[in-house]
Amino acid sequence: MKIGIVGLGLIGGSLGFDFRAAGHQVLGLSRNAETSQTAIALGAVDEASVNPQILRNAEVVFLCTPLGMMAQTAQSLLPYLSSDAVLTDVGSVKASVVEALEPLWPQFIGGHPMAGKTIAGITAAQPGLFVDRPYVLTPTAQSSPAAKELLVALIQTLRSRYYECSAAQHDRAVAWISHLPVMVSASLIASCGQESDAATLQLAQALASSGFQDTSRVGGGNPELGRMMAQYNRAEVLRSLQTYRHALDHLTALIEQNQWEDLETLLHQTQQDRSQFIDP
Amino acid sequence: MKIGIVGLGLIGGSLGFDFRAAGHQVLGLSRNAETSQTAIALGAVDEASVNPQILRNAEVVFLCTPLGMMAQTAQSLLPYLSSDAVLTDVGSVKASVVEALEPLWPQFIGGHPMAGKTIAGITAAQPGLFVDRPYVLTPTAQSSPAAKELLVALIQTLRSRYYECSAAQHDRAVAWISHLPVMVSASLIASCGQESDAATLQLAQALASSGFQDTSRVGGGNPELGRMMAQYNRAEVLRSLQTYRHALDHLTALIEQNQWEDLETLLHQTQQDRSQFIDP
Repeated sequence: MKIGIVGLGLIGGSLGFDFRAAGHQVLGLSRNAETSQTAIALGAVDEASVNPQILRNAEVVFLCTPLGMMAQTAQSLLPYLSSDAVLTDVGSVKASVVEALEPLWPQFIGGHPMAGKTIAGITAAQPGLFVDRPYVLTPTAQSSPAAKELLVALIQTLRSRYYECSAAQHDRAVAWISHLPVMVSASLIASCGQESDAATLQLAQALASSGFQDTSRVGGGNPELGRMMAQYNRAEVLRSLQTYRHALDHLTALIEQNQWEDLETLLHQTQQDRSQFIDP
Repeated sequence: MKIGIVGLGLIGGSLGFDFRAAGHQVLGLSRNAETSQTAIALGAVDEASVNPQILRNAEVVFLCTPLGMMAQTAQSLLPYLSSDAVLTDVGSVKASVVEALEPLWPQFIGGHPMAGKTIAGITAAQPGLFVDRPYVLTPTAQSSPAAKELLVALIQTLRSRYYECSAAQHDRAVAWISHLPVMVSASLIASCGQESDAATLQLAQALASSGFQDTSRVGGGNPELGRMMAQYNRAEVLRSLQTYRHALDHLTALIEQNQWEDLETLLHQTQQDRSQFIDP
């Protein structure tokens, strides 16, 4: 099969490696000629270009640009696509992308391969990035069953764990487990920065160990990515923040009111609840 | 030197291993005869007993009981100690312990070896647990310089990083980097548990990966320990929670008001600030 990849970064490049390994012909499109050459040299694509003509025979096209460029990139490419080409994207928020692209291209289905690394770009791309990771598709009532079937078959070659849900449900779920943790964790770092006594702050920095490191990790991550989560999943992120604030206020009240037994019960519950989110 | 260890768990047992390796004679006291025998069999102590008489010749005594038992345990032991014995504790909160014990024993100085494991008890004890970890002493104006000198020398044999500060400053610093993260992280788990749609909750659980795992780790930890932090460091934990809530409200307001540039600036700041807390 001829597969187009638009945007040759970590995700696009890694998809390219795996699709080539499965025997497909991978055609890359990048805004940057050097990135195209690097992708060919690394073996992530068979061919690559800055010219969208390269996509004209592609049977399926993966949009792998940052969230903020997804809709405009898609619109500029549609004139070059074969009329029966299946189109999908890899954005980490789905409702806004699906709303923008489905009306433009009936063969579009939103997707989200949930794999990442702290480093980005084509040189970070690697074979097997999606193995055992979730890959979500968000088809709608309008989606073509044949397009979905084709994408599911390709996802199976990646050896991902396949999930299917509505774009709204996807965005709510990732707000809980991906976007809210970033906001919670960033607020932890920001509040520590409010310590006005320099000696105490310095001591805190010296004493910080794995507990602080783990809790602050995603809040000290990529700022552009954090902003995109909030901007493109705004309603769900705000909803989760509101619920979080209530939970925080409740826990704070237990401490204010010296309700130690209740606090311990709450912490037993969170200990138990967490195991539901963690791979055995 | 004859060193008494009161409470033969992870910390007490690990101290015993290292002090024995440095050539000291380690005398263990436990409430439990079986624990005493296990400690001897493992090599964490030279002798152990359930009878406080075992401490009568100890030149220095480490109180290694849980925080909630520190003061009452100390009081019951004082009649058995040699009058010039140096006394210290290993509690993770210092002001309350120092206030309770310093008036009872002039040779007392509070301490906090900051090492831990998820598993507890004498069978989890190990040599070298404190290597490169912080060990804080909190002497006061009343503290005996000779007692401090003796403890600092012992801490050096553990190859810990030594810090000295007031009990109040210790408690404020650990509120930021140890106790607040537990409350923040537990509230994250508690808020996810509020998702009322069962299918969305199940999807969130299936999609959760390293970001959620890391941010939720300390909030899903030992409930008794979390309660003790809040109970014994109540004022500082509440103070840090109040500052945290302001930081959370500020970040939430940026999202509510679509101030994306400001949000990205804040996340750049937290990315930079975090590096001050993390070992290079």
